[in-house]
Amino acid sequence: MPAKNAFYAQSGGVTAVLNASACGVIETARAHRKHMGKVYAGRNGIIGALREDLIDTSKETPSAIHGLLSTPAGAFGSCRHKLKSLEENPAEYQRLIDVFRAHNIGYFFYNGGGDSADTCLKVSQLSQSMGYPLQAIHIPKTIDNDLPLTDTCPGFGSVAKYVAISTREAGLDVASMCETSTKVFILEVMGRHAGWIAAAAGLAAEQDGDAPHIILFPEIAFDRVKFLAKVQRTVKRWGHCVIVASEGTQDKQGGFLSESGLTDAFGHSQLGGLAPALASMIKQELGYKYHWAVADYLQRSARHIASQTDLDQAYAVGKAAVEYAVQGRNAIMPAIIRGKGKKYSWHIGEAPLAAVANQEKKMPRAYISRDGFSITPEARAYLEPLIAGEAYPEYRNGLPRYVRLKLTPVPRKLKSAFKV
Amino acid sequence: MPAKNAFYAQSGGVTAVLNASACGVIETARAHRKHMGKVYAGRNGIIGALREDLIDTSKETPSAIHGLLSTPAGAFGSCRHKLKSLEENPAEYQRLIDVFRAHNIGYFFYNGGGDSADTCLKVSQLSQSMGYPLQAIHIPKTIDNDLPLTDTCPGFGSVAKYVAISTREAGLDVASMCETSTKVFILEVMGRHAGWIAAAAGLAAEQDGDAPHIILFPEIAFDRVKFLAKVQRTVKRWGHCVIVASEGTQDKQGGFLSESGLTDAFGHSQLGGLAPALASMIKQELGYKYHWAVADYLQRSARHIASQTDLDQAYAVGKAAVEYAVQGRNAIMPAIIRGKGKKYSWHIGEAPLAAVANQEKKMPRAYISRDGFSITPEARAYLEPLIAGEAYPEYRNGLPRYVRLKLTPVPRKLKSAFKV
Repeated sequence: MPAKNAFYAQSGGVTAVLNASACGVIETARAHRKHMGKVYAGRNGIIGALREDLIDTSKETPSAIHGLLSTPAGAFGSCRHKLKSLEENPAEYQRLIDVFRAHNIGYFFYNGGGDSADTCLKVSQLSQSMGYPLQAIHIPKTIDNDLPLTDTCPGFGSVAKYVAISTREAGLDVASMCETSTKVFILEVMGRHAGWIAAAAGLAAEQDGDAPHIILFPEIAFDRVKFLAKVQRTVKRWGHCVIVASEGTQDKQGGFLSESGLTDAFGHSQLGGLAPALASMIKQELGYKYHWAVADYLQRSARHIASQTDLDQAYAVGKAAVEYAVQGRNAIMPAIIRGKGKKYSWHIGEAPLAAVANQEKKMPRAYISRDGFSITPEARAYLEPLIAGEAYPEYRNGLPRYVRLKLTPVPRKLKSAFKV
Repeated sequence: MPAKNAFYAQSGGVTAVLNASACGVIETARAHRKHMGKVYAGRNGIIGALREDLIDTSKETPSAIHGLLSTPAGAFGSCRHKLKSLEENPAEYQRLIDVFRAHNIGYFFYNGGGDSADTCLKVSQLSQSMGYPLQAIHIPKTIDNDLPLTDTCPGFGSVAKYVAISTREAGLDVASMCETSTKVFILEVMGRHAGWIAAAAGLAAEQDGDAPHIILFPEIAFDRVKFLAKVQRTVKRWGHCVIVASEGTQDKQGGFLSESGLTDAFGHSQLGGLAPALASMIKQELGYKYHWAVADYLQRSARHIASQTDLDQAYAVGKAAVEYAVQGRNAIMPAIIRGKGKKYSWHIGEAPLAAVANQEKKMPRAYISRDGFSITPEARAYLEPLIAGEAYPEYRNGLPRYVRLKLTPVPRKLKSAFKV
């Protein structure tokens, strides 16, 4: 009997190093041919399994697979689709089993964040609940850095590096201009529920007066009066003020500031755009000339300046997932464990999926300064190693060479289609 | 009699490689000690001269000066201040001469764009008009790439590289997500009057279907119907659509789309923000889920991914300015001349300042595709060499090491202050 094949899928928001995990999975599976057959990737995540839309990664050359290491986003396509519970939608689970059985799939690797961990946990229980033998392993990935039991989440370190660098660079720009022009610069960064990404901007400040001067965290209720006073004090002291604002910044009632009722010329509500809203508030109240930037997808796809630590860890969790699988493990997640010593070190450990799914790791209050506008030395000690090292991609004609896979479909075996 | 000192100032919007020109000036001046004394930099540009607020660059170590090569923005501070004509404001010119005479300044190096070239030209005429011997040389710098007589303007190549890379990276991101989530991504880039920067994004597209799918240029009047049709066609064909929009995009009446009457919750007009306005229009008319980014200062300060070509040229124009000065030249600008061969080459030539000042180099219509939404092979041939090479800075603790100068003031010699 041939070795069981593996199913691999990317889920949720993509990152600069998500494909490095895919590379870790596929290269390691190829090294374990005796125990693991082919790796089939779901086109657009779990939806690819439901639609029987599988990609045969064995058709890709070793160099193409290796090229995934330096290619951002999700080479196989991702999706936002959360499986309901077995009770609510048994048809979806039955369909997964039909597809897996048709393609002799015995390993399920799901590469995503908190929601995906939950899906992966449900799939891991299919052996018991529906009598189909399957090992399900979750591979952590999320720029939100909010998975429990792992020191960090692959994808976060690279966003953190991008945001810290961009803050330092734009900070120098404003400092150059502020005598006669722009006094306030606002950079809006991702982080709907937690301030990890905004906190990383704090790494840019090494000396008194360095940008960022103010960080807005979702964890700290926005206080307009205190905020404006700090902006004014900073401009008076340093001539300019650089603000890094998490998109998830909330008012005291828990409403997102970014949904504070902006409307366009036609009266349509204008979502997103915390940065322009803050800029407008500052202009109105303090009169300062401002500039603002919204990094959006640029921050999470910035493979050109990915963190080497992050890249190594992304590869390592993919590799470990396959190794755990061939050891017969199920319902676990390879986790990044930080060493105890003063010098940063890490290794991969094993976290039970039941303890990972649907848990959010919040940023400790001790990472935020007492006034709520900056990070503490404790936060710096945690964050700094995660952005260490520059994992530059190769370039051709001045642009990064990102790999293009063939994405050869696996021939369909089932007659029925499935509507997702 | 000691050699005359030099005055150097940075002017207008700063760039990723402006300090490389400063480095070229200072290092070359140090190599010509017999003919050129000290280089005094104006703190915050020409304002520093008017206020007699000069920085003694001779107090900086060679390694600090060399560090300018890899430090973005304006290390001496820049300003937006255009000198009026001699007739309108003779006091300013008299003040300049007083300060220059007090500090034995015989060379004037002005590092800026079109407005600065005009100022520099006026200063170059002071020898004649006010009898003070002075050689004025303009050093080109502007991300707008709109100076005449030079093939390109230092600063532009690095923005072009950043924008092309960011477009490619974000394009892969949207392509990964589009099956179930974001269909349209809009990146707003700088370029108030010309589409050079937006055009550079076009370099990211190598094959059919690659991002960007639509570029909006200031040179092409925005046609809402045509634009929305193209967005829809692109999403239907490729599943997603990446739009790069120049902030200077205008409607048929010549009004900026970014000033199309956005108001915030308090009814304040909301300037800037073409990207959210376009996103809102697309959502309203076509219903697509969108994301948008505004790069703003991030694009022009992104020294972490500066173009090596751009960096080399920025240094070269600074170096050439000093060499021309010691040869006795006045009222000129070192220009970048492109070689005729098929393989890209360049050298420094000399452009008369009178032909540079107050002229804007527009992007040729032949660089824009017939439908107005992309670039032509001709544009690509022009742009591609300008983003070649990656001039990485050094890193420490995961962040670029940008130099901090001592900025030692030159003791004041004049009794009178001057209000700017």
